[in-house]
Amino acid sequence: MITFACPDRTGIVARIAGFLAESGGWIVEASYHTDPDTGWFFTRQVVRANSLAFDVEELRSRFAEVAASLSSESTWKVDDTDERRRVVILVSKEGHCLYDLLGRVAAGELDVDVRAVIGNHASLGDITRAHGIPFHHVPFPADGKAEAFAHVAKLVDEHEPHAVVLARFMQVLPAELCEAWAGRALNIHHSFLPSFIGAKPYHQAHKRGVKLVGATCHYVTADLDAGPIVEQDVIRVDHGDSVVDMVRKGRDIEKVTLARGLRWHLESRVLVHGNKTVVF
Amino acid sequence: MITFACPDRTGIVARIAGFLAESGGWIVEASYHTDPDTGWFFTRQVVRANSLAFDVEELRSRFAEVAASLSSESTWKVDDTDERRRVVILVSKEGHCLYDLLGRVAAGELDVDVRAVIGNHASLGDITRAHGIPFHHVPFPADGKAEAFAHVAKLVDEHEPHAVVLARFMQVLPAELCEAWAGRALNIHHSFLPSFIGAKPYHQAHKRGVKLVGATCHYVTADLDAGPIVEQDVIRVDHGDSVVDMVRKGRDIEKVTLARGLRWHLESRVLVHGNKTVVF
Amino acid sequence: MITFACPDRTGIVARIAGFLAESGGWIVEASYHTDPDTGWFFTRQVVRANSLAFDVEELRSRFAEVAASLSSESTWKVDDTDERRRVVILVSKEGHCLYDLLGRVAAGELDVDVRAVIGNHASLGDITRAHGIPFHHVPFPADGKAEAFAHVAKLVDEHEPHAVVLARFMQVLPAELCEAWAGRALNIHHSFLPSFIGAKPYHQAHKRGVKLVGATCHYVTADLDAGPIVEQDVIRVDHGDSVVDMVRKGRDIEKVTLARGLRWHLESRVLVHGNKTVVF
Amino acid sequence: MITFACPDRTGIVARIAGFLAESGGWIVEASYHTDPDTGWFFTRQVVRANSLAFDVEELRSRFAEVAASLSSESTWKVDDTDERRRVVILVSKEGHCLYDLLGRVAAGELDVDVRAVIGNHASLGDITRAHGIPFHHVPFPADGKAEAFAHVAKLVDEHEPHAVVLARFMQVLPAELCEAWAGRALNIHHSFLPSFIGAKPYHQAHKRGVKLVGATCHYVTADLDAGPIVEQDVIRVDHGDSVVDMVRKGRDIEKVTLARGLRWHLESRVLVHGNKTVVF
Repeated sequence: MITFACPDRTGIVARIAGFLAESGGWIVEASYHTDPDTGWFFTRQVVRANSLAFDVEELRSRFAEVAASLSSESTWKVDDTDERRRVVILVSKEGHCLYDLLGRVAAGELDVDVRAVIGNHASLGDITRAHGIPFHHVPFPADGKAEAFAHVAKLVDEHEPHAVVLARFMQVLPAELCEAWAGRALNIHHSFLPSFIGAKPYHQAHKRGVKLVGATCHYVTADLDAGPIVEQDVIRVDHGDSVVDMVRKGRDIEKVTLARGLRWHLESRVLVHGNKTVVF
Repeated sequence: MITFACPDRTGIVARIAGFLAESGGWIVEASYHTDPDTGWFFTRQVVRANSLAFDVEELRSRFAEVAASLSSESTWKVDDTDERRRVVILVSKEGHCLYDLLGRVAAGELDVDVRAVIGNHASLGDITRAHGIPFHHVPFPADGKAEAFAHVAKLVDEHEPHAVVLARFMQVLPAELCEAWAGRALNIHHSFLPSFIGAKPYHQAHKRGVKLVGATCHYVTADLDAGPIVEQDVIRVDHGDSVVDMVRKGRDIEKVTLARGLRWHLESRVLVHGNKTVVF
Repeated sequence: MITFACPDRTGIVARIAGFLAESGGWIVEASYHTDPDTGWFFTRQVVRANSLAFDVEELRSRFAEVAASLSSESTWKVDDTDERRRVVILVSKEGHCLYDLLGRVAAGELDVDVRAVIGNHASLGDITRAHGIPFHHVPFPADGKAEAFAHVAKLVDEHEPHAVVLARFMQVLPAELCEAWAGRALNIHHSFLPSFIGAKPYHQAHKRGVKLVGATCHYVTADLDAGPIVEQDVIRVDHGDSVVDMVRKGRDIEKVTLARGLRWHLESRVLVHGNKTVVF
Repeated sequence: MITFACPDRTGIVARIAGFLAESGGWIVEASYHTDPDTGWFFTRQVVRANSLAFDVEELRSRFAEVAASLSSESTWKVDDTDERRRVVILVSKEGHCLYDLLGRVAAGELDVDVRAVIGNHASLGDITRAHGIPFHHVPFPADGKAEAFAHVAKLVDEHEPHAVVLARFMQVLPAELCEAWAGRALNIHHSFLPSFIGAKPYHQAHKRGVKLVGATCHYVTADLDAGPIVEQDVIRVDHGDSVVDMVRKGRDIEKVTLARGLRWHLESRVLVHGNKTVVF
């Protein structure tokens, strides 16, 4: 699979499609987008693996020339879709997103390799292990957060994960981890951003008397809850819903929003440009 | 129809229902809500008019005693559902909400008496008059806004309207009009509040890269876009949507959100308490 | 909690509310509905348990008189909200609804007592037992379905469950079990009924080229997929979605639709009248 | 703009994109879809008009060769996006869809040329004429439907419309008109098809006790309400909604579903294949 972005000009599609056709590549799925504001062009091409006369490494090397010939500013990636995606999940106490992801994996719906779950509380260990997945408990004492994050980073990085999922992980990532995991760390925030940034968004929503609550899956950046948005959804609430009801209803949205965002990320459907995403 | 609110205690429903039963009142629709946060009780009772042995004035006078006996803090209203609701609509240049409301009235779906449409531009005059409704053009010169608002207020107040609808009226109401029309002035804001308060919300939404845009119908208060929310809705957008596309998609949400909020308001379904609404 | 239905007349609310007020009952939540088509009245009253001077048995006995005095046709139920709800779940191979329900129970969001899970395949046994819940494998050989159902019935009935949940259980219940579990057996059908009744609804939906797929939670009756509907929801699909994609997207709707329907059923929010439901 | 479909093979995109690149064509928007079930490939290419060295006629003639070289089964169309789209609207008595379309045209949101509105009742004449659009009243007596349809056909065909919109036109088109307007006649059906085909769908929906009602915009074929679906949407209803309420709520969905379907059709986003649509 190829994802590619560069400043728009004529002939990009012809060049890429021509290259693939010459190589015998059978395009299974292709998406294109031109952003009139930035003048950038984006594409994602899924090629049937066995239709090419060469392997992924060779594709990568040959496509590098195509990309360079189109623009010196181009950014691109060639992914081997046969390589199973590795995921590490960070959690605290709230288990609904974790249960949901593990259920999807167990049901065969999300075909990924969850290498580890790391919790700053121990409470979600049993269910994780029942799914045959290692669980690491890393406590976060108030005076030892830096060490705790160093420990987490070590546990995460050894798996070279395609995605680090903050599944209601209630600790704010330090800037260096945001940097190290840029474009790979996905968070689920329990509000319709940019409304209700930060702590206790359902309380904020209840106080404001909104008629819908939402959830936002976004890439983590050093700027809290302000990273590129991958997916959002909402659910209706009314005057009869207490904060507890909102929390419960909102969870159903958090779960699906995170699961959709994660799937799209792992399928290389999400291209980040500036603080926005193209989701093919 | 009776709407009633007071601090909660036992026996309120029995008292009100008992009063209505003694009077022969046939309850067509009844709603109750107790807010555990404020400890307040709210109800709305629709009584078949001809089931009572007396008229609305007498009902009002008798219910006053019931209300007083339940709580000295109680707030209540007895509406004559046979009285046609009077509405005045304020507009600027953007006509989609006006077209929608006029279409609903013409189709017989919204059975209200639109007494007048007032615009700070003249462009929506023809369509208004084609519907047989008076249109008043009140220009808003930069150095004459106070006079313009005084003129608008005069045109509005002579109809004693049950609702003053700001159907994408792009002028900020002065505090004294917010006060005078408190609980009767409905605005449609073209964002999912509290996101994107103020000017150009679709531009703000586009810049932030949100995946849904929304609309909010709320009562106008002196605090800009911060009044009690009556109704909200959202519509999906994606990376392919320019600001112009967002504006177009958002309009479909603005129209229905305003129409729903207005209907509920005119049916006395909306009870305001603090900065929140109960919508029965 | 009291649920009550009878042909409408004046004074019902006054009688019930009066009875509760005399008994010191603090009404936490009250809903009323009059169906103009059938002329029936429905209500649900949640009373704070410790506000009454007597226990549930006594409430039941006293309310029986109230109900009888209002109508000889009345149907009613007094539930003890302190009694934990017992649930038995029937499954086949597809685990997404089971995973979801178990996750909700484990997360404390659905506070019910899942007494047993029964599967006509063994594959969901491990995850069930990991949640500390007994799993029974009852094979359904083509020539032994009657015996298998007799076995299932025995395993179910010993728990006297408030709900028997068919969580994508792919066997059609025999008429006598539909009868025995009437008003307690909830099924999730993977289409927006009445579209696509019977087998392989996603295949049917794909063939018809619909733009939304749905799910329906309904009470099981002897008439296949035709029982009273409790809840429905839909999700958008497009031309790019294969049957497999529709199945995957539909699952997210099946899960929440079943979970909502089950919650409402267990909270006695669902009153069945004829082939329709009132959901308070 | 080019729309093109043919059995899938390698090199199609390269051939089309290469042709456009050689011609200097600047692709503003491009969409591709391969249907694994039928093995067909579909594409839509929006080319900036002034980027080509030749006019639309020449593009059409040159593209014919490209299309022929790719497949003898290919179907394609080259549209001049500078040509304003012509629309004729058929109505009966219910005006909500007509009001909505006229409002969109008046607001500049739907930039089309409504050449005429034809009604089998006269009641929507005034509003149509207020928008400066000719209205033709063609009565449909029970014993003169054939003649009436002949008259309608004559009034429609003289405009060579890009779309014939049945905006709640309550007469069933005869087979020969379905044939003559194949792929151009859009109907809005007031249910979520395939549920509730035929007359009085809201009554059917109310009787079945569904929890959502819907609307379907589809191409008209000789098989009643069974043509290719362009767009669908739904809105929530509950036990409190009478048939009249369902009708009112459903209208909001009918309007937007028809308006979206019409827009997509006029922008050549809808490619029909068999009884299904690809909507780019």
